[in-house]
Amino acid sequence: MYGIFSYDIAQPRLGYKRNNAVLDLEVVALLGFFSDLDLDPSVFAQPTLNAFIALGRSVHRLVGQRIRDLLADSEATLVNVHDQVLIPLDRTTLYLPVQISNYTDFYAGIHHAENVGKLFRPDAEPLLPNYRHLPVGYHGRASSIVVSGTPVHRPTGPFLGPDQRPVFGPTQALDLELELGLIIGKANPQGKAVPVGEAEDYIFGITLFNDWSARDIQRWEYQPLGPFLGKNFASSLSAWVIPFDELEPFRVDGPVQEPVPLPYLRSTRPGHFDLTLEIWLQTGDLPPQRISQTNARHLYWSFAQLVAHHTVNGCNLVVGDVLATGTISGTQRDSFGSLLELSWNGARPLMLADSSSRTFLQDGDTITLRGYGYIDGHQLTLGDVVGTIQPNT
Amino acid sequence: MYGIFSYDIAQPRLGYKRNNAVLDLEVVALLGFFSDLDLDPSVFAQPTLNAFIALGRSVHRLVGQRIRDLLADSEATLVNVHDQVLIPLDRTTLYLPVQISNYTDFYAGIHHAENVGKLFRPDAEPLLPNYRHLPVGYHGRASSIVVSGTPVHRPTGPFLGPDQRPVFGPTQALDLELELGLIIGKANPQGKAVPVGEAEDYIFGITLFNDWSARDIQRWEYQPLGPFLGKNFASSLSAWVIPFDELEPFRVDGPVQEPVPLPYLRSTRPGHFDLTLEIWLQTGDLPPQRISQTNARHLYWSFAQLVAHHTVNGCNLVVGDVLATGTISGTQRDSFGSLLELSWNGARPLMLADSSSRTFLQDGDTITLRGYGYIDGHQLTLGDVVGTIQPNT
Repeated sequence: MYGIFSYDIAQPRLGYKRNNAVLDLEVVALLGFFSDLDLDPSVFAQPTLNAFIALGRSVHRLVGQRIRDLLADSEATLVNVHDQVLIPLDRTTLYLPVQISNYTDFYAGIHHAENVGKLFRPDAEPLLPNYRHLPVGYHGRASSIVVSGTPVHRPTGPFLGPDQRPVFGPTQALDLELELGLIIGKANPQGKAVPVGEAEDYIFGITLFNDWSARDIQRWEYQPLGPFLGKNFASSLSAWVIPFDELEPFRVDGPVQEPVPLPYLRSTRPGHFDLTLEIWLQTGDLPPQRISQTNARHLYWSFAQLVAHHTVNGCNLVVGDVLATGTISGTQRDSFGSLLELSWNGARPLMLADSSSRTFLQDGDTITLRGYGYIDGHQLTLGDVVGTIQPNT
Repeated sequence: MYGIFSYDIAQPRLGYKRNNAVLDLEVVALLGFFSDLDLDPSVFAQPTLNAFIALGRSVHRLVGQRIRDLLADSEATLVNVHDQVLIPLDRTTLYLPVQISNYTDFYAGIHHAENVGKLFRPDAEPLLPNYRHLPVGYHGRASSIVVSGTPVHRPTGPFLGPDQRPVFGPTQALDLELELGLIIGKANPQGKAVPVGEAEDYIFGITLFNDWSARDIQRWEYQPLGPFLGKNFASSLSAWVIPFDELEPFRVDGPVQEPVPLPYLRSTRPGHFDLTLEIWLQTGDLPPQRISQTNARHLYWSFAQLVAHHTVNGCNLVVGDVLATGTISGTQRDSFGSLLELSWNGARPLMLADSSSRTFLQDGDTITLRGYGYIDGHQLTLGDVVGTIQPNT
């Protein structure tokens, strides 16, 4: 998978991670291993993936195949340059892999949407009437997206205190959200919709994504225009992007969509992916503990449907945009994708190994999102997303 | 006021507009008129204002004073170079003045919020409980903001038909929103709030802004996460940015804020501006007709409060970000800032001079937003925002 890294005195550049090493693609290019591909080597010496992404899927396929050939055959082809091109991960510094022009967050996890409905509208239908008709989504803040590993400071803001009066202070309900992020690989001109059948061509790849949330701030501010301060203090993106082609072995049918959506959202091809997703919590001196395990196939709307919906009115996507899925929860309590759901809004604290408990995150807690696929001998591991909560300052 | 323009064979560059001419700031710099200011002339040869904005307010003050001196004295100082530096507006092409990394839209027009509440929740209090406690806002789409003059295509999308079933097609309720846009001039580091007393230092200048809206699409999609396809097809920004200092003569007290807001929003200095704002509609062969006249002082929250609120949780602003105020309506029907309000959601069509009428916009209609101030001999005219509706394609 692709990312941006530096090491020793080398400036940030493109790398391809395999296990615990990163292939330095600039050096690989300078050594001539891509010379028949008619590429400008400078595309691998950039501080973001954007220029490489903009080359298009046919180039990504050629480069990806060449990388796999080199690594499979590394003892032979790379033997004399091994130390120059394969850098141990622990010697590297990682960066946000893309320059993100626009960030959109969807609400495509139906079990999450149902849980939120049950918690906040207990006397009504959990899903709002529009949910099964269109992929609900909203625009998020691009500037505050940080790379995995960046500490997350507990944000301050206004919310309602216990007596329902407005108060101001550090959030008392800091949460995470387990999501996937789609990295847009192709721009559509403003005014030109992307048909659902072509929509996957606009996705360069996928990452794990943690949409940190301050629930108390969010609850007081979000009507009628949606989340703002409750979300825009920080979101964490993996340092590594899985190219879309590598998802192919994991393609599966999604849930039956009933009612049948409007024609612009109808696709004949299975558009979901069987990827196991996990949340790990590390507190105090305890080892990390898995607090949730779910699967990307629990999403109601497919990736292709998210892209088709986003552009159907002519909205223009830009290379490097992030489209996040929204929180992915399963149907069982141990498969929920946020602490809001896992602790049922604080009513059922999570018990930890040292007999302490958690409703929402405490300072010093570390959250790690993990993802992997394993089908018919095909194996895929997504790049982790790690974040440790720092005290409010 | 500052903008980006080109003419003849000259590439896009910075200009300062006065009346019907644009001062070519690159040529002014190359001729040495800024030579004592220690500026790199290349900052005036950029395709956006961002690099100039990033120089900071002290530089903007020096450059602004020099420009005013040159223009006041143009017969003398500029006499031999007049044709080189002052380009007639009708020979120019105009561009989006800033590269916009992030776009936020607030809801700071209280009479607009009250009108929307009356229309959509007729049996409840018009304002939601949070309205007077915090400046409600949401993130919008940066990539689809276009410069004034760009045609706006009627967007397609899903909405509820007359029988309340989902349908798909061109919007039947295309609207405009009269807003001001603040152009952010200074970045705050992530995690570091901007105090309300310093917040105006973070605003480079202001523009008029038209937040085009498809009301039928918006109404079906917006719960619970806010507007999306109903807004993100296009928004129009003026080509010209008024530097913040030029607003000073128009500073006035805003409305009394009751209840007194939380301390992070309290400011002792008047933070509103007495600027008249107008909507003009041109249809068919008729001359343009003024359909609304309102004033920026009708905003409930000040510009400084918007910046302080946006950053109080540590959200980082970036140079060139646009913070729009939300629709600015007065208290009377002829001072409303959208057709939704002016036609009372279609119940009271606007009658036009040829006895035709309008509820929402028709193909071929042209909307022009205008703004100006006139106090104690001080006069200021904002850059127009013009857009003509094109048929859906």
